This record gives sequence, C-alpha cells and structure tokens, in this order.
Amino acid sequence: MIDPAPALEALAFNSDGLVAAIAQQHDTGEVLMMAWMDRAAVEETLRTGRVCYYSRSRGKLWRKGETSGQSQRLIEFLVDCDGDTVLLKVEQLGVACHTGHRACFFRSLGAAGLEEIAPVVVPPETLYGQ
Amino acid sequence: MIDPAPALEALAFNSDGLVAAIAQQHDTGEVLMMAWMDRAAVEETLRTGRVCYYSRSRGKLWRKGETSGQSQRLIEFLVDCDGDTVLLKVEQLGVACHTGHRACFFRSLGAAGLEEIAPVVVPPETLYGQ
Repeated sequence: MIDPAPALEALAFNSDGLVAAIAQQHDTGEVLMMAWMDRAAVEETLRTGRVCYYSRSRGKLWRKGETSGQSQRLIEFLVDCDGDTVLLKVEQLGVACHTGHRACFFRSLGAAGLEEIAPVVVPPETLYGQ
Repeated sequence: MIDPAPALEALAFNSDGLVAAIAQQHDTGEVLMMAWMDRAAVEETLRTGRVCYYSRSRGKLWRKGETSGQSQRLIEFLVDCDGDTVLLKVEQLGVACHTGHRACFFRSLGAAGLEEIAPVVVPPETLYGQ
C-alpha cells in the first residue's frame, strides 16, 4: 500500500472529477489502454495494488478484470507535469481490451486504411461468459 | 502523406470535437505525453507527418515544437477499440515536456511521496527563449 495523499494533492481532476489514466505494460512498454480515474479510483488502486478505473458509461468504479478476470497489478504510478494524466505501469493479466486483443491499440493506419496489427488473444465471449 | 479518411471515419470525437492522443517514442516505448486532437489536427498530422495537437487552453491548433523547436515526427498512427483515443508512435526531437524533461511523466509515487525520476534535459528558459 502506498499513501495516496501526495498523488491526490498533485492531481488536477477535471470538471467531471476525473484524470486520464494510461496503462502501460511495465516490462515491454506496450501501451495497453486509456481510461479515467476519479479520486476514489486512485485511492483504491494505490491501497490495493490492483488497478481500478472510473467507468464514465456506467457511472461507477470499474475494478479492471472484475467481470473478465483480466486484471492489472500496479507496478508504478506516475503523474504528468500538469497533473491531469497519470501513467500506470502495470502487469496485465491476460488481455487489456474488451475485444480480446492484448491492447486496445490494435488498429494501425497505413496506405490501405486501418489494419488490424494484432490478433484476438482471448475470444470476447470467453471474457464475458456469454 | 497518409489518407486520413479511414482514421477520421473510425474516430469518435467527443462533445468538444476531440480525441485523446498519447505520444510514445517509437523505439524505446517511453510514453512522452498525453494531449488532444481535433479533426483538423488529425488531418494535418497525417498530411505533414509532423504531429499537431489541439490546445484546449489556447483554443487552436498546436503544432508541437512550433515555439520550442521540440517537434515530433509521426512514425505510426494507431486507433483504439472505441475510437476515442489514438496512440502516436513518434520520433521526439529533444524533449516532449514544457518543463524541459524528456517526458511529462517524470514524477513517480513512492513511499516518500512524489519523486522526480528524470532530469531536466533542456532548461525551460532555453525552450521558450526567455
């Protein structure tokens, strides 16, 4: 457990009470996803070492992996220069993306348009038990 | 020059007409900064190969490096699963952060609070000619 107070002091939550959060696999450097955190999500993440976001669509805390099992263990918590974005270095269990891709950034723009550059690792129906 | 049309079709601009943009140094994997792009910034970036953001504080296009000289050359343009965030793999000239640090994420939370884990590479007064 890390004391969240110094981070909370440095963070500049926006008018919705949120900061942007980028998750990066700590050892490979792969950028996995971008989501949002409110104050409670930051506190819970630092208290438990398990990454928790705030889901804007559901309007509540989103404990990453609580449904899919694909959780993120926090390795390092970094704050940017103006405090409105955090970089979470994590150990991603399984896949980060709800599509079953390892990372959400699996489409790359090339001469032929947007191309999928990474495979589906886990079928989404497996992730969500349909 | 890359045709921006497939990217623009896939992007889900928010109510302010923006998508989040994460810049990552293409070879080291270092996450440099997070900023925003509007449609025009995406078009200009893909047309010129030089990264252009939208500055929310100034309310206009922000050609990264136009004042500081610390520009970003686009290497790869990736779109996330729901189209509201892009990942820009770039070649960063000099430093990405206005503080003179290489990246904006130079503060890490540890037992003793937030600690600067990276040096100022270029003094800010040099960057902005003060």
